[in-house]
Amino acid sequence: MKIEAIDFFYCAIPDVKNIGDGSQDALLVRVQGGGHTGWGECEAAPLVSIANWICPMSHSACRPVIDAVAGQTVEGPEDIARIHREVKALGLDIAQTDHTLSGIDIALWDWLGKRLETPVYKLLGYTESHARDPYASQLFGDSPEATFTKAEESRASGFRAVKFGWGPFGLGSAEEDIQHLEAAREGLGPEIQLLVDVGTVWLDDVSKALSRVSAMEAANIIWLEEPFIGEAHSSYLELSKAFKTVKLAGGEGASNVYAAKNLIDHGGIGFIQIDTGRVGGISAAKEVADYALTKGVQFVNHTFTTHLALSASLQAFAGHPGKLICEYPVEPSILAQSLSHNQLERDDNGLVNLPDRPGLGIDVNIETVKKYLQDVRIEVNGKLLYESPTL
Amino acid sequence: MKIEAIDFFYCAIPDVKNIGDGSQDALLVRVQGGGHTGWGECEAAPLVSIANWICPMSHSACRPVIDAVAGQTVEGPEDIARIHREVKALGLDIAQTDHTLSGIDIALWDWLGKRLETPVYKLLGYTESHARDPYASQLFGDSPEATFTKAEESRASGFRAVKFGWGPFGLGSAEEDIQHLEAAREGLGPEIQLLVDVGTVWLDDVSKALSRVSAMEAANIIWLEEPFIGEAHSSYLELSKAFKTVKLAGGEGASNVYAAKNLIDHGGIGFIQIDTGRVGGISAAKEVADYALTKGVQFVNHTFTTHLALSASLQAFAGHPGKLICEYPVEPSILAQSLSHNQLERDDNGLVNLPDRPGLGIDVNIETVKKYLQDVRIEVNGKLLYESPTL
Repeated sequence: MKIEAIDFFYCAIPDVKNIGDGSQDALLVRVQGGGHTGWGECEAAPLVSIANWICPMSHSACRPVIDAVAGQTVEGPEDIARIHREVKALGLDIAQTDHTLSGIDIALWDWLGKRLETPVYKLLGYTESHARDPYASQLFGDSPEATFTKAEESRASGFRAVKFGWGPFGLGSAEEDIQHLEAAREGLGPEIQLLVDVGTVWLDDVSKALSRVSAMEAANIIWLEEPFIGEAHSSYLELSKAFKTVKLAGGEGASNVYAAKNLIDHGGIGFIQIDTGRVGGISAAKEVADYALTKGVQFVNHTFTTHLALSASLQAFAGHPGKLICEYPVEPSILAQSLSHNQLERDDNGLVNLPDRPGLGIDVNIETVKKYLQDVRIEVNGKLLYESPTL
Repeated sequence: MKIEAIDFFYCAIPDVKNIGDGSQDALLVRVQGGGHTGWGECEAAPLVSIANWICPMSHSACRPVIDAVAGQTVEGPEDIARIHREVKALGLDIAQTDHTLSGIDIALWDWLGKRLETPVYKLLGYTESHARDPYASQLFGDSPEATFTKAEESRASGFRAVKFGWGPFGLGSAEEDIQHLEAAREGLGPEIQLLVDVGTVWLDDVSKALSRVSAMEAANIIWLEEPFIGEAHSSYLELSKAFKTVKLAGGEGASNVYAAKNLIDHGGIGFIQIDTGRVGGISAAKEVADYALTKGVQFVNHTFTTHLALSASLQAFAGHPGKLICEYPVEPSILAQSLSHNQLERDDNGLVNLPDRPGLGIDVNIETVKKYLQDVRIEVNGKLLYESPTL
């Protein structure tokens, strides 16, 4: 079946704040053909990805993503794999290419699943989808007291694992960070798993991390996430050796499959966290998930935005055995909250299950897309290359 | 001194062709302040980098490059390093960030050098600039006969090293490629160094490369460049072990310092090729050059466009000892040829020397910029975020 239309929708809340909340905007991708519609979502800088979608050709390996996708025919998963190869070849010299491809790939899988009346995870070869134990993912409070309050609230919400990240953590003194760690542990009580996310603020500086090692071990955290930029492999490896009980987690910034595999191979990490909206979509995430299994590294989704992105992320490792944890956004923006009619609610046991429905099983709320749609126009030499589509 | 203005100029020839010639367009960056002007150039997809320059903020680690650069003060190299860290922190989640930063960084060094009346390589800490032995860099012919003719012409031009790349090579049968290799060697004669560039067309498929190993050894090539995507480390490493005399070269696609260091650490390469217009500018290239020296890997510039880019690229390893080779574009587009009033001409010995002049020592031809300037407009919600500046 031929792709009849692909459209990019840039949505944002009116007042985007300078905080570590990636749910304040969204770049949605809609694929249409044969009366069916698939939806996907790109993480990262909507305007940059839109420019990548329609930019004029620079040379044979520096072409817009649209050149490798428009008018393609998709009958099965092998066609999505072929489109990947063509996008990669044509967009090789543009760093943003895999970011942009991510939303398209997700929408193609959703579209294909709906046409074949099959959940995406089954198209990926999994026979079943295992329930996941969600960890509440949220920002550190502005003060240790605020972190304590958030931790207490998370405990009351029944989560068995809670992650704190970003906010002031890692930016000030080790002493301040230790107070946040103690507040988080105290608010959660001794039973709940605590995860910590540094959001790469130490870049590649191992010494900054080393001064917090004993406090993190004392707070009994499960993982330390993104102490460094994902490509700073040697820093990851060095720090991993300093811990006795804590494992390193990273990979959300992986812009393609190779970046993720290289971090697994050379970074000494225990968890590889993949953002399906950034790594190249569900196809790329599945490839990383398969690779992680062979290397004894646990695959975990990175999802901080919508339940469309959450469903897409969970498909990639749906069949991995065991009651693994998954990231679960607990304080998304009003845009992310209202983007779909249905959500992946926790069941009576507090677990998250993928919908037993065709495609991703998420019904996009068109009214939300309309409400938050940004009006974008890009012209080159008087020719309109992109304008926000109407709905 | 404060940066008073930064402007991006997207230039392109009228009829950009679907060939591996990256000189068909150019994204120039101009920095102005205190009566001095610096120029730089970004490789890769001008429109995408312009969008990255001015895109609306998505969250605290997904912000436009302009937020970390506009209004900054630069008194010395340490200020350029600080700007790098700030751009990286604010643009962490946007893959294009280092591409965009590259041209800015180059322009900042040019600006600073002009103000201090010092060549950039001296600001980088080198006491002298060594002459480089340029290799002629060109595309394979469409047929073995055409490759033979090009090789003969290169020999007549007096080059001691010649590189063929892209075109049909690697896309067809091993037999066809072997004919091109034989034609190149025959046209060059036995003395001239032959380098081969596959342009990543095998992605990560080692088997395709293995079927050409013996022919490449027989043609006595110095290096095999980019058989795979730069991040496919394990493929590089595997292939490197199959060669007796040929060394692998790669890295032009490195989008930041980490990517280049990781390829050095894990890819088994003999040459690291850095495009200053893509890796993050002269600052990033210099860091890679220093690292390569400590690892016994030879640093070489990747330059296929203008002499502005060529000067910027050569500064980064200007002080590395020995008569090292350098890439030297021999068939750039009319845009690239005419972009500067002066060029880095080969001297009587056929060598290339950096200008003994302040900054990069290249005089940009404003008339060329005007002639090829693309008229770009980007609007979001009725607000004009970018339009091509006037000259």
